[in-house]
Formats: sequence, structure tokens, C-alpha cells
Amino acid sequence: MPAVATNGPVHVVGAGLLGASVGLGLTTRGVHVTLEDTSPTALALARDVGAGAPAAPGDPEPVLVVVATPPDVAARTVAAQLRAHPNALVTDVASVKSAILGDLAAMPASERPGWERYIGSHPMAGRERSGAAGASADLFAARPWVITDGGTSGPAAVLAVRALAVDLGAIPVELTPQEHDDAVALVSHLPQLAASLVAAQLADAPDAALALAGQGLRDVTRIAASDPVLWAAILAGNAAPVARALRGVAEGIERLLPALDAAATAGLTAPGALHTLAATIAAGNAGVVRIPGKHGGAPRRYGEVTVLVPDRPGELGRLFGEVGEVGVNIEDLTLEHSPRQRVGMATLAVVPAAARMLEEALELRGWRVVYR
Amino acid sequence: MPAVATNGPVHVVGAGLLGASVGLGLTTRGVHVTLEDTSPTALALARDVGAGAPAAPGDPEPVLVVVATPPDVAARTVAAQLRAHPNALVTDVASVKSAILGDLAAMPASERPGWERYIGSHPMAGRERSGAAGASADLFAARPWVITDGGTSGPAAVLAVRALAVDLGAIPVELTPQEHDDAVALVSHLPQLAASLVAAQLADAPDAALALAGQGLRDVTRIAASDPVLWAAILAGNAAPVARALRGVAEGIERLLPALDAAATAGLTAPGALHTLAATIAAGNAGVVRIPGKHGGAPRRYGEVTVLVPDRPGELGRLFGEVGEVGVNIEDLTLEHSPRQRVGMATLAVVPAAARMLEEALELRGWRVVYR
Repeated sequence: MPAVATNGPVHVVGAGLLGASVGLGLTTRGVHVTLEDTSPTALALARDVGAGAPAAPGDPEPVLVVVATPPDVAARTVAAQLRAHPNALVTDVASVKSAILGDLAAMPASERPGWERYIGSHPMAGRERSGAAGASADLFAARPWVITDGGTSGPAAVLAVRALAVDLGAIPVELTPQEHDDAVALVSHLPQLAASLVAAQLADAPDAALALAGQGLRDVTRIAASDPVLWAAILAGNAAPVARALRGVAEGIERLLPALDAAATAGLTAPGALHTLAATIAAGNAGVVRIPGKHGGAPRRYGEVTVLVPDRPGELGRLFGEVGEVGVNIEDLTLEHSPRQRVGMATLAVVPAAARMLEEALELRGWRVVYR
Repeated sequence: MPAVATNGPVHVVGAGLLGASVGLGLTTRGVHVTLEDTSPTALALARDVGAGAPAAPGDPEPVLVVVATPPDVAARTVAAQLRAHPNALVTDVASVKSAILGDLAAMPASERPGWERYIGSHPMAGRERSGAAGASADLFAARPWVITDGGTSGPAAVLAVRALAVDLGAIPVELTPQEHDDAVALVSHLPQLAASLVAAQLADAPDAALALAGQGLRDVTRIAASDPVLWAAILAGNAAPVARALRGVAEGIERLLPALDAAATAGLTAPGALHTLAATIAAGNAGVVRIPGKHGGAPRRYGEVTVLVPDRPGELGRLFGEVGEVGVNIEDLTLEHSPRQRVGMATLAVVPAAARMLEEALELRGWRVVYR
């Protein structure tokens, strides 16, 4: 067991997905974790998955408290923990930061004693599902853990949360609360809204239309299966940055609609309409290339090798075994659905220099390589 | 070689991705294909990838002509082909249908002689890239091929295009031109616009914000890497249905912005704001479950098994080989990127009854199963 930097018991308040995952991750690494939750059921579930022990009188004092409640109760919970554990450092892991710090700042100082012991943070991890049943000791592996000092935190708090992040396999990233909130509005909250707004248009669509759905629609709407109550709290807690980002999209739509209306009546002769349509797509081109590729850093172009894979147990295994035999590493993989026929298409992203060689090698082994 | 239903030479006009793929697919199956393109380079490239032979005087008359030009020249090309080959059936494969039929109908009858020989169609296949270099004989495998009779086509035309679709491994689907256009506006064009509009917001974002990007953003913006000129033509050609679909999203945004503004000032006490936010996400929930699952039909819930996969050649192969040994079929696969650490997380979708057994089996074989 590698040494951990967290040097004492950790108390976790809120035994949902994040809290239970923090507890699991620390427990796995030999740290003593106590748990607290307003729901006895959630608490028992977290205990049962191994996230820690329900808090009891006589527990040793924690060195760190992790508040993992929904964002709407985070500030008052942080304040209560500052009072309850006068020697502990405290963090919360909600996905909005400025609002929580603002709520704390607005309290009388006596309600939040020694609040330099507190620093907000946000592990960029997790899935649509919630609850301890989905918890994982590795939820944070290799993901950013943002630490947000709004000018009120002392160095001990910063160090404690950096240590926590590293102990859980995450990558600490320091931003101001405002930088964090603007960032997640753009890279998390806006995509969520876009997925939900597009998916909502499908609710009353004819079955025949939905039968034509392809990978593009599936990708755009995948995260539309999210929890409405949790997201109402997140969006409300980050409302101003989200509104800014959403207005950017609204402005794009306001330019598009007249161009579409003009094209609907005048077709290709509608002055300027084609330019607006093309410019919308081109603006998206410019934005999407800025998303970092695998392993961080600048996006890289891969070579792609596409293979038909019969839909039987072991076929994918056989394919990847043979790719491994050839000595090529699979950088990324897309598996395409084949409606009503039991065959899939696996697209393997490999370093460009290996692509052609791999195609030949797979063909020699009897695979049907799709040249695209 | 299985027998094909297409019973004579096929002439393909437009040697881009779709045209060359049709040519490749038919040539592979023993059908004689001739090619035509306004660009000598595109024509030569399509010939070189095996899509067919450049048309020459003395060629036997085709039984079917496939017009695979951009949508803005499709109608005039169909008319020219009706005139040039008085005994052939003719189809176009553009992604908009009503506009092309409308353009044809507006021509004098002498320009489109025997136009009951024409029927529009649209294979729901392809990728962001264009051009014959990406062509594939299997591009249409197991994808819908929509055939759109607007009341002007004779039965021979319908049969010929059904035969073409089936010969290329596709699934013929009959819709009216309007049903088709409304459907693709919703399931293809609207998602494209959403991806592009969200991605455009990233163009000027700080690097630190983009560093927090996760799978949600990547999924929503994947198709933002599309060709602006091609899409300008597609959107202009389907402008009214696209505008309708986009207005649905605009209305959703118009409800959201006041709710966000209210939450920005009054937080959780803003009357009705939380309801609007939650209702937006819930509406997306209702829509996304209507997208058909793998193999068509109603979406199915799968069990998921997530495993850490070291980023070395052969590891994925070893994993899938062992899954195959256990006798479990992989229904779907997601591979998550791990920035700056050379480990990935493979999430395997399997039938629910197999999930727990597979987890135990993999753990016994030394895999690190991630419980989420």
C-alpha cells in the first residue's frame, strides 16, 4: 500500500456518489473514515459498500472533513463542521464554488469560526447516476480535482485538499472560485443543457423518425439521462455563468433562424443565408479542436482502422488479442451499433504509422476491414 | 458471392463519399459500375479505390442511375440523367428530399421526361469526412436507406432502389419526402447544430477551462468537426423543418434564461425557477429514452462492468479474450480517456444477468474491477 499524504481520520458528510467514493478510496488506502448522512438508508448503504464507519461518540477527531452534500446545503454544512471540529480542515466537493463561499461569507463570523480552515474544491468526476451503490474507490482516478481559494483560505487547507486529491489518484488544479464556475458553466453545464434541450424535442417524435437515429444523435443526447433535482440545484448554484454561456448559444440561434427562414423561401439565392449557415458550422470546427485529446495536451490525430465484428461472444476479444499480437496499442475505440443485424463496426484509433500495417495484418487473419 | 437484385449496369454521378461507396459496394458484389464527376481528380480517385470505371462512349446502357451530387445540384442532375438514359431508373441520395422533388416538379415536363422513373432516396450512413478516399463498400451495412415516393414515382423505381439498398446491406424504409425531411431535421440536423453551437463557445475559452473537459463535453461536440460548405447546402435544402426543430430548442432556452436570471439574484427562493430548471432536464429524460437501443427496437437496460485497463499493447485484447472465455457477449463498450496517466477505463455493457458473474470472473483473473 503506497503511503498516503492524508495523515489522520477523515469525516465525510453526505454519503452519496461522491462522498461514498471518497470514503471508499480513502478506506482502500488505509485511512480511517467516518460517515454522516441525514438519510439512515444512504448511511447504511455507504457503510455496506465499504466507504467507512457511521460516526459515533468517542470517535477520534478528524484531521479533514469532506462535505459532500448537494450544493444547496453545502455552506451551512461547512459552517456546522467548522464549529463541530475546531481543529479540522474542511472542504466541500460541490460542482459550484462561488455561491457556497458567498453563502459562508454572508454568515456572522461566529457561525463559521476559523474559516481559514475551509477551502472549496470540486473533483471533476462522476456519472449521471447518483448514490452510494454506484460509488467507486477509483472514481477520481486521473481526473482533475479543482481547488478554489477565494482569498479566505489558509495554506493548511490548500495542502490538505491537494493531499486528498493526490491520495485518491486525482490531479490537483488550482483556480479561483469564479474561474471554476465560468469553466464548468462552459464545459459541463452548457453541454448538459444542450443535450437535454435536443433530447426534449424527441419526446413526441414519430417512431419512424426515431428509427433513423444514428451515432450523432446518440452522442449529443447521451447525458440527457441526468437527475433533474440534482441539476436544478447545480444550475441554480451557478446561474449567472450558465446564463452567460447559454446566451452565447441563444445568439447563435438568433443568427441562424432568419438565415433558415430566408433559405426556406428563396433557397440558395437568399443573400447571406448560406454564409451564416456555413459560418455556424465553421465556428464549431474552431471550438472543437481546442478540446484536449487523450492523455491531456494538444489533440492528436490518430490513424483509424475499422473492422466488422460479428456479434458473438469472444469476437471482440479475438480481435483485440490479434491487435495485441501485432504489437499495436489501441488509443481509442468506437463501437457502432448495427440495428437489426448482428454485426458491429469497431473503429480503433492507433498511432498513424501503425494504421496501414494493422489493416493488412488483420485482413491476413481473416477480418473484414472497412476502408473509409 | 450472393446473388444481387440489381440486374444490370449502374451509373453513378458524383464520386464523393456516398457515390464512391455505392460504386465500391456494387463492384464488390459483381455489378458493373460506371462513374461520372465534374472533377477529374475526384473521378480518378474513385476509379482508383475500385468504385467503378469512368463512363465512356459505347458503355452499355445502365438499368439504374444513382445521383450522388451535393443537394444543390441534385435535381438538375436527375433531370439530365432522365434525358440521357431514357430506359433507366434514377435515384438521388441527398440528405434532403422535398426540395429536390420540388425543383424537379417545377421544371417543364420536357426537361424531365418519364420522371416516374425517378424516386428520391437517402441512405442514413456516412461520416463527417467526405470524398472517395473515405469510401467503403460497407458504408451502408445495417443502416436505414430511406426511399421517398412523393406520389410521382412508378413501382419500377421503388423496386429498383429497394433492390439497391438490400444489395448494399442496408434496410429499406419507405417514408414520404416530408416525413423524411421532418425526421432528419430532428435526428440529424438539429443535433449537428447543437454540437456546433456548443463547440463554438469553446473557441475563446481559457486553456484552464478546457483542461476540465470531460466525456460529456466530448460527446456533445463530437460531430462539430463537420464540413461547413456541405452542411450549408444540407441546412438550406431542409430549411423549414430545421427551423421548426431549432425553434423548439429556442423556446426551451427562452424559458430557461429568466429562470437562471432569477436564480442568480434570488437563489433557491426565486419562485418557479427551480421548477423550470428541473423540468428542462426531465423533458430531456423523456426524450432520450425514445432513442432505439442496439439492434433496433426498444432501448434495453444493460448491466455494466467497468475495468481498469493499463495502456499497453495487448491489454484490451487480453481483457476481451477473457470476457469471451467466460462466454459473455459485449453489447457495447465505452473506453474512457485518462489524461496524463496511462490507464483507461473500459465499461462493458452486458446482459444484466451476466454482470455480477463477469465482475467476479474478471477479478479472479487479476483485473481491477471498478465498482460504480
